[in-house]
Amino acid sequence: MDQRAIGIFDSGVGGLTTVKVLRRLLPNERIIYFGDTGRVPYGTRGREIIRQYAMQDIAFLKRHEVKMIVIACGTVSSCMTPQMQDSIGLPYSGVVLPAAQAACATTSSGRIGIIGTTATVRSAAYSRAIRNILPHARTFGNACPLFVPLVENGFIQPDNQVTELVARQYLAPILEADVDTLIMGCTHYPLIAPILQKIMGPDVTLVDVGEQVARWAQSYLTSNDMLRQGEGGCEFFVSDSPENFIETAGLFLGGDITGEVQQISVDSISPSAI
Amino acid sequence: MDQRAIGIFDSGVGGLTTVKVLRRLLPNERIIYFGDTGRVPYGTRGREIIRQYAMQDIAFLKRHEVKMIVIACGTVSSCMTPQMQDSIGLPYSGVVLPAAQAACATTSSGRIGIIGTTATVRSAAYSRAIRNILPHARTFGNACPLFVPLVENGFIQPDNQVTELVARQYLAPILEADVDTLIMGCTHYPLIAPILQKIMGPDVTLVDVGEQVARWAQSYLTSNDMLRQGEGGCEFFVSDSPENFIETAGLFLGGDITGEVQQISVDSISPSAI
Repeated sequence: MDQRAIGIFDSGVGGLTTVKVLRRLLPNERIIYFGDTGRVPYGTRGREIIRQYAMQDIAFLKRHEVKMIVIACGTVSSCMTPQMQDSIGLPYSGVVLPAAQAACATTSSGRIGIIGTTATVRSAAYSRAIRNILPHARTFGNACPLFVPLVENGFIQPDNQVTELVARQYLAPILEADVDTLIMGCTHYPLIAPILQKIMGPDVTLVDVGEQVARWAQSYLTSNDMLRQGEGGCEFFVSDSPENFIETAGLFLGGDITGEVQQISVDSISPSAI
Repeated sequence: MDQRAIGIFDSGVGGLTTVKVLRRLLPNERIIYFGDTGRVPYGTRGREIIRQYAMQDIAFLKRHEVKMIVIACGTVSSCMTPQMQDSIGLPYSGVVLPAAQAACATTSSGRIGIIGTTATVRSAAYSRAIRNILPHARTFGNACPLFVPLVENGFIQPDNQVTELVARQYLAPILEADVDTLIMGCTHYPLIAPILQKIMGPDVTLVDVGEQVARWAQSYLTSNDMLRQGEGGCEFFVSDSPENFIETAGLFLGGDITGEVQQISVDSISPSAI
């Protein structure tokens, strides 16, 4: 038993899709969520600045004496260096490895598509993780830089023409590659999953990376006897005003936000503080 | 004569459309440009964080002993408080007032449309400035939060279907209001002006706010005997990696970038340092 909270962060609101799954799987856990809404999006930025932001995000969560760090951001998960991983000093996971394992367990043809932000696709982190598990797998990646702004601006209705038009462009090379599994490599994408599924067709399995990292957290806490007992709950921290966050959070959580939302200043935290 | 440089900043690359005009109007000037590419976009953020970022941007430029500050960002220009304006301590202008003056000089019907980021439209800064000049003018604003990501991701071809579809949605209420002048209240928008013009029709005049603030700078420096003599040039500073900036800068400058591009850390600057 470990009564401490799970720390989880994302560049913005996307990681709330992971919180939604965590709350379903682990209703007794306390969750401390940080969304870096003052500096979102991460995925179009350079690797070094993404790493600096990630170190500050992790340092912030560690101030709260969490028992585990869940990196619910595809971009950060793809850009972590071994040095960063070593310095966390707590059980942690990004979305890449759990999602790669799920995709490898799902695929029959060994042909796997990967969509994500520009930084994620450029990093090739998913492809590397997949080939470590299934050496003969073939992966087909394409960056979808407009998906995050489209989702954050509410262009998510299953019949949204704009998002469908953009998605058809981004998915064209992946469709052509005849994959049987598509990794949605960013925690914003589950909100437009119906559009992606329509374009890819019913025979392609979509992998929700946030759901997979939530399952990893459940499995890790269970097998290490670190589950919490008693009532669970959430606390939310953001780096921009809480109002905007509260407005869109419901979409991602699948229900109104419950729990306090506080604004903090993350850019004054030293990236080396972890 | 004043040999010091002009300081100019924007949340990202959009302000380069203003640099382009400045270089044409004032070829002998030295220009120091800061693009806060590590924290772009500003326009979807809350007012307080926009103000903090703006103060840091101004503080950075003031370290370079500039003679004037040009705020080439529609969002920052709309969110400045009188206290912030007082603390600059140098000649400066945002885009709002020069653009409002140009729109009032242009309109015949007194019906003026304003498009900009969410923060800009919410601020109502353009409407206030217009009514100070033309009390009976009627203004019609609509926020266009996807235009900045669309432009930054290169969706700018005059026949781009996605941008046209988004623009038709955003402009519908302005078209209906039968305006004769449309303020493009963000320095990113000139890159999609052909699409906006096609939708609004040939009888609507588009006001390029970056061009108007560049004209203000020319007029101020000329009438205060502050023009520079000798060879002009540009230095560029960004808060994310220079590579991404250099890649897209050409689009905005209308030609390859000339002059050094350096990365700096802006978030460590105290907002009260100006």
